[in-house]
Amino acid sequence: MEKKVSESVINRLPRYYRYLDELIKEGVDRISSKTLSEKMGLTASQVRQDFNCFGGFGQQGYGYKVESLKESIGKILGIDRQRSAILIGAGNIGRAFALNITFEKRGFHLTGIFDNDPEKIGQTVGDIVVSDFEEVEKFIEENKPEMAIVAIPKAGVNQVVFRLKNAGIKAFLNFTHAEVEDAEDIVVENIHLGDSLMRLSYKMGEKI
Amino acid sequence: MEKKVSESVINRLPRYYRYLDELIKEGVDRISSKTLSEKMGLTASQVRQDFNCFGGFGQQGYGYKVESLKESIGKILGIDRQRSAILIGAGNIGRAFALNITFEKRGFHLTGIFDNDPEKIGQTVGDIVVSDFEEVEKFIEENKPEMAIVAIPKAGVNQVVFRLKNAGIKAFLNFTHAEVEDAEDIVVENIHLGDSLMRLSYKMGEKI
Repeated sequence: MEKKVSESVINRLPRYYRYLDELIKEGVDRISSKTLSEKMGLTASQVRQDFNCFGGFGQQGYGYKVESLKESIGKILGIDRQRSAILIGAGNIGRAFALNITFEKRGFHLTGIFDNDPEKIGQTVGDIVVSDFEEVEKFIEENKPEMAIVAIPKAGVNQVVFRLKNAGIKAFLNFTHAEVEDAEDIVVENIHLGDSLMRLSYKMGEKI
Repeated sequence: MEKKVSESVINRLPRYYRYLDELIKEGVDRISSKTLSEKMGLTASQVRQDFNCFGGFGQQGYGYKVESLKESIGKILGIDRQRSAILIGAGNIGRAFALNITFEKRGFHLTGIFDNDPEKIGQTVGDIVVSDFEEVEKFIEENKPEMAIVAIPKAGVNQVVFRLKNAGIKAFLNFTHAEVEDAEDIVVENIHLGDSLMRLSYKMGEKI
């Protein structure tokens, strides 16, 4: 890609992907940018602009082919690459994430789960046995996972990220309250569930 | 407010709030828009523009007073109003949310938890006993909660939201995979954890 795609376009890509997935399940074959935009609360010109960032995806007059549009967006998102991921923290958030997200549909598969709590080590989450976090470096060396989901208490996050980075992990999905900063050699998605509460609070004040 | 504030400004407000909260803990009294912007990965002019949407918050030359800036942003977010919330679904996600989010700091307090699973009803999450979802209408009538956090399987969401709306709930934080659409009389925040995975996948392809 020549130009850097804006953050807001990147944020919309997963929504397009999810929506197209729903359309396929409903048996829809083609969709116009107008219909697609209405369903997503955007304008038709915004949808076309978004898609133009990636070369357009086919003729507008006839609408987009849903299946191939989904495939194209999936490729842009890198979902077709199926990277491997490990989960650090087998508490409520970690378990919820491991059990509820269909990783395969999102471009990742989960290969290991780690915790430092003796009560959790040895338990099974989904079809994976929770391992001792002390063994994480060995596991990374042998299995080369690319991504770590960090779902541990805030206090431990810096040390955990430091160890994982040194062991070769380059991408982090961070559920702790502490923000992990994007650095030159890693990519991070910080998930702040509390932010959603605050946004909702704002919208309530604005509207109801 | 005269003008509608843009979505991206609203999205940044919780981040400002969180960051200012950290600064207070560190004992910082004043901060310049330059320092604040650097810490948040924005430009100083973007920070000033964001704040100008709400009238500016004090003199730039001397920097912002951290404490009063946090208070002002908290008021805009409506955090000072302390609305009451109920949680529907005492599974992993619901429990994680109820136990890990400091509701009071986000403008809500949790007053009830509901589930339809006989094994979960009667259990305690934090200091709240899980009630039968069949009693939710009665609870809403008596306690008038304003918001519902919905953390149930996708299949049940339409019916649950329908019942809660009819009982008087006007704001929803939705953790299910199904998107609940914003309507005239309600506000919704849809949390799609899988989207974060896809965004991370995109960033990995772009950078590492």
